[in-house]
Amino acid sequence: MRDQQITKTYRELQQQICSQLENADGKSAFVTDYWKKELGHGYTMVLQNGNAIEKAAVNFSSVSGSVTNSMKDSMKIVEGSEYFATGISSIIHPKNPFVPITHMNVRYFELNTGLAWFGGGIDLTPHYINKKEASWFHKELKTICDYYDSDFYPVFKSWADNYFYLSHREETRGIGGIFFDYQTAYENESFEKLFDFTRKIAEAYPRIYIELLTKNRNTEFTEKEKNWQKLRRGRYVEFNLMYDHGTKFGIDSNGRVESIFLSMPPMANWEYNFTPKTGSKEEETLSLLKKDIDWINMNS
Amino acid sequence: MRDQQITKTYRELQQQICSQLENADGKSAFVTDYWKKELGHGYTMVLQNGNAIEKAAVNFSSVSGSVTNSMKDSMKIVEGSEYFATGISSIIHPKNPFVPITHMNVRYFELNTGLAWFGGGIDLTPHYINKKEASWFHKELKTICDYYDSDFYPVFKSWADNYFYLSHREETRGIGGIFFDYQTAYENESFEKLFDFTRKIAEAYPRIYIELLTKNRNTEFTEKEKNWQKLRRGRYVEFNLMYDHGTKFGIDSNGRVESIFLSMPPMANWEYNFTPKTGSKEEETLSLLKKDIDWINMNS
Repeated sequence: MRDQQITKTYRELQQQICSQLENADGKSAFVTDYWKKELGHGYTMVLQNGNAIEKAAVNFSSVSGSVTNSMKDSMKIVEGSEYFATGISSIIHPKNPFVPITHMNVRYFELNTGLAWFGGGIDLTPHYINKKEASWFHKELKTICDYYDSDFYPVFKSWADNYFYLSHREETRGIGGIFFDYQTAYENESFEKLFDFTRKIAEAYPRIYIELLTKNRNTEFTEKEKNWQKLRRGRYVEFNLMYDHGTKFGIDSNGRVESIFLSMPPMANWEYNFTPKTGSKEEETLSLLKKDIDWINMNS
Repeated sequence: MRDQQITKTYRELQQQICSQLENADGKSAFVTDYWKKELGHGYTMVLQNGNAIEKAAVNFSSVSGSVTNSMKDSMKIVEGSEYFATGISSIIHPKNPFVPITHMNVRYFELNTGLAWFGGGIDLTPHYINKKEASWFHKELKTICDYYDSDFYPVFKSWADNYFYLSHREETRGIGGIFFDYQTAYENESFEKLFDFTRKIAEAYPRIYIELLTKNRNTEFTEKEKNWQKLRRGRYVEFNLMYDHGTKFGIDSNGRVESIFLSMPPMANWEYNFTPKTGSKEEETLSLLKKDIDWINMNS
């Protein structure tokens, strides 16, 4: 029952997100690939080469199967041999380097023991950090969180700081946002609350992003700034292939490779020992890629 | 004693490789960064934006320290608390898509229990597989191997097939080559033999590559072929970040990040669900990215 309800809702939310992003972009349309494998099915929706969006990927899937040893290890599953999982996962790479990269995910995971939980979040990776926008972004997330639980924002904000972290670079991926996992939903009450919370996150995602896209999509930029964007995308690739749990889960559960790797940027660069000039915008951004920054109050 | 001897030889070989590649390229020069950290030191040598070479990286390092738990797991170390390691590792990304990417590594690892071993290899990742060149490449490696042991080529060729494999794509990284590890060197006799073998590999590396570079560096290519090269580089990134033991060892041992990530291509692309046309060169290359191809005899 719950499975079907969430599957249906998440699939509808996926279409809603795509429709809003497509309208905002104004040029390219999303193409939809339906896939079906032994473990389940999914819809992979991609918009490429738009006016303002270089690549937007919105994945939906609903899968079930046997819990593998690798899943037991990485997800710390103690009991349970069968699972069901459904979720939406999205990533947007804009053309303009002054528009941030963003990522959103909501997911539901259930074991045959009855244990079930929600996870998800939204986070932002600006190529150039704009403090005012960063503060606004975090306030938007806090408003959504506070409606459900005043602990949500502080706990999930800190979770994002620790999760979206490239330890080998000692760098956060961006300005974070919120990230949560293992929010158990035994009772109907907690189930409804968490389910609704993930719905609100998915709904807020295109609205928040379109605001930032609209503001900066026509900002002039140089070749040098475009190059910096590609270097930052290189970091994004490092995170996705080295740390991301979604990529790992996708591969461990024998998911559809092209859908999993949809999170990759269209192009990314690496440059040996690139060091931004003292006092440059690039240097300022790097100095802000740290955990535990109080974005909301940083301007006050 | 052995430590110093190998360190000195490998550092000299690094300079020799760079000097030959620089001559062959004819434009850009290698820049050298010396680094020193608590665990040891190294020389990072990079050539960028040459006539024919887009990026050549040749790393040398000599490090020692305490065996970490992560190293114990990944290197299957049972006894021993301190290690010494030295090696050369190189990667070359050419400009022309008809010139292959290549990679070479030789390394020596020693534990305070007295256990010591050599590892290394050479492998080739053509963007477009040329069967004749692939056969020639493998013959060259077999000739080097056979001088030392007739088992070396078949065993190390198969090892390369299994190691340079992207299981999530069910694709080999390229046409393989030779790869070996844990070749123990207790006795002076086996030590001298293996040390000499790794020396011969490092010496052969620029000679073999320059042959392939010279043959194809001026071959005409289209934008479409250049794009295919970038997609193949995307696969290279996936391998390096998801499977490569050298990257893992570098990070686990707290190595110098910029030297570890020197193996990354200057730029790489990802394109959702890219499928080469039936009968195209790209399709033929994909069909040959398989394990256990007998490259040497495939044309006879």
